[in-house]
Amino acid sequence: MNPWKEALLRIDANLDIEVWPRVENKDRVTFAVCWNHPKKVLDGYPNLKAVTSLGAGVDHLLKDVAIPKSVKLARVMIPSLKTQMGEYVLNAIQNYRFYTARYVDQKREAYWSKHNPVPKEDCTVGIMGLGEIGSAVAEWLLVNGYEVNGWSRSKKNIGGVQCFDDSGLDEFLSRTNILVCLLPLTKETSGILELDVFKKLKPPAFLINVARGTHLVEEDLIYALDTKVLQGACLDVFEEEPLPANHLFWNRPNIMITPHTASITDPEEAAELIVENYKRSLSGIELLNEVDRELGY
Amino acid sequence: MNPWKEALLRIDANLDIEVWPRVENKDRVTFAVCWNHPKKVLDGYPNLKAVTSLGAGVDHLLKDVAIPKSVKLARVMIPSLKTQMGEYVLNAIQNYRFYTARYVDQKREAYWSKHNPVPKEDCTVGIMGLGEIGSAVAEWLLVNGYEVNGWSRSKKNIGGVQCFDDSGLDEFLSRTNILVCLLPLTKETSGILELDVFKKLKPPAFLINVARGTHLVEEDLIYALDTKVLQGACLDVFEEEPLPANHLFWNRPNIMITPHTASITDPEEAAELIVENYKRSLSGIELLNEVDRELGY
Repeated sequence: MNPWKEALLRIDANLDIEVWPRVENKDRVTFAVCWNHPKKVLDGYPNLKAVTSLGAGVDHLLKDVAIPKSVKLARVMIPSLKTQMGEYVLNAIQNYRFYTARYVDQKREAYWSKHNPVPKEDCTVGIMGLGEIGSAVAEWLLVNGYEVNGWSRSKKNIGGVQCFDDSGLDEFLSRTNILVCLLPLTKETSGILELDVFKKLKPPAFLINVARGTHLVEEDLIYALDTKVLQGACLDVFEEEPLPANHLFWNRPNIMITPHTASITDPEEAAELIVENYKRSLSGIELLNEVDRELGY
Repeated sequence: MNPWKEALLRIDANLDIEVWPRVENKDRVTFAVCWNHPKKVLDGYPNLKAVTSLGAGVDHLLKDVAIPKSVKLARVMIPSLKTQMGEYVLNAIQNYRFYTARYVDQKREAYWSKHNPVPKEDCTVGIMGLGEIGSAVAEWLLVNGYEVNGWSRSKKNIGGVQCFDDSGLDEFLSRTNILVCLLPLTKETSGILELDVFKKLKPPAFLINVARGTHLVEEDLIYALDTKVLQGACLDVFEEEPLPANHLFWNRPNIMITPHTASITDPEEAAELIVENYKRSLSGIELLNEVDRELGY
């Protein structure tokens, strides 16, 4: 059985669940559970009241014109998404500091050569996006002894984190060595990771993108690496996924690539929240983690 | 100038320092500062009162028969050695959990394939050796949410760590997935990382050796990896360093190799301690971090 169907039925065995593409009668569907669904999959569900994403991101739902504006959207926000992201970002930073990828490559050549770690003082982290995940990552890095700056549309207040709002972008960048993108993907944030931004970072600078591929202007990253504006990057997300085999990124020595694995929703953990939102949608009350269509998250 | 001489002179500009091999008059030398010195280098220093290692390990001093038993031995123990080791071990664990080396290899093949992280529940850490560094590593891992067991000759008491002494080795191993060796190298601990020990670990099991190469029976590691007793290993130290280019370890996919870089003594930070020990040796009083020749650390 589909692991999601299994997890949901464990919460309530009476749930009536159909798994696409085998949906017998579209009229009966009032609630949909989606992740990167193919185009047009949600066409023609006249009684749809709500759709939940399986992850924290909802850009795949917002860009689907087949979902009427009257349909409520929600996202999944569970503790393990924050823990996983904190661990991923910490690991990305430490692998940059300690030259892990280079040692893996040297092993292939049976080559013994030491590289001095990048000192922690040169690793002030700046997090773009201080939602639930961004804030949790900030706190995880603080615990691990990193200095952390944060930047968000509206200014946040997180103990120990130097926070900036929209108007403080330049100052935020000038105090940041390691830029971590955890923004939602919206019209405003698409393409935000561009050369001008990289140039304003405090050298030595490094980029971690764990949000969405389209936050990054890919050719600007290549240029910034070639001109040493950036020392390297760790990317978990890409404009096109899977990253095409002929993509330039694969051949760049200073880019670490993971296949969109930074933070994965666990069906067992998310099922309760999804069932709760199903109940709420039936009664027409506000969903947990409901998405504001104007803000785009 | 030699960075160590420079750092020491910054503490006290009147110090009279000669750097091997240009030692003009061996009679004048009362205090030596050494790290993996070549054999016989310390022969014929009639007035030598003390020798300090540049790191936490002193096995290179203890095995040097040219150093009379009357000469005091000391080691360097400074905060950054503990911090670095904590970060290295955490990084090694997270790279095992998140398949970092495999993703680096997949990048070379432009190959997009996801691997589910090893869950934290399957990553209970067992630290062998609970001296200053071992205890600090245990605490660093606790902060990062790992369950930690500890094993040492005499039982220690570290909040949050399940501690075992010599007689509790089997129980310690049976509760440990990730075995971390931070023991001093002595007659008792040489070769302690052997097949029988690996077999007693709780699967899935993983080995991290950051102590000395001779703690590990190298052929037992190869065998344990082949028979899946161990899922992998991260090694920073080797019987022979640099690791010879024809060594089997280089070609094993599940061994991460770093060139003895886990914890490096910073001259600036260590200089004060060394000068203090030089003063103490002149007055014949006990050194800071003096080595017990019987215990071997």
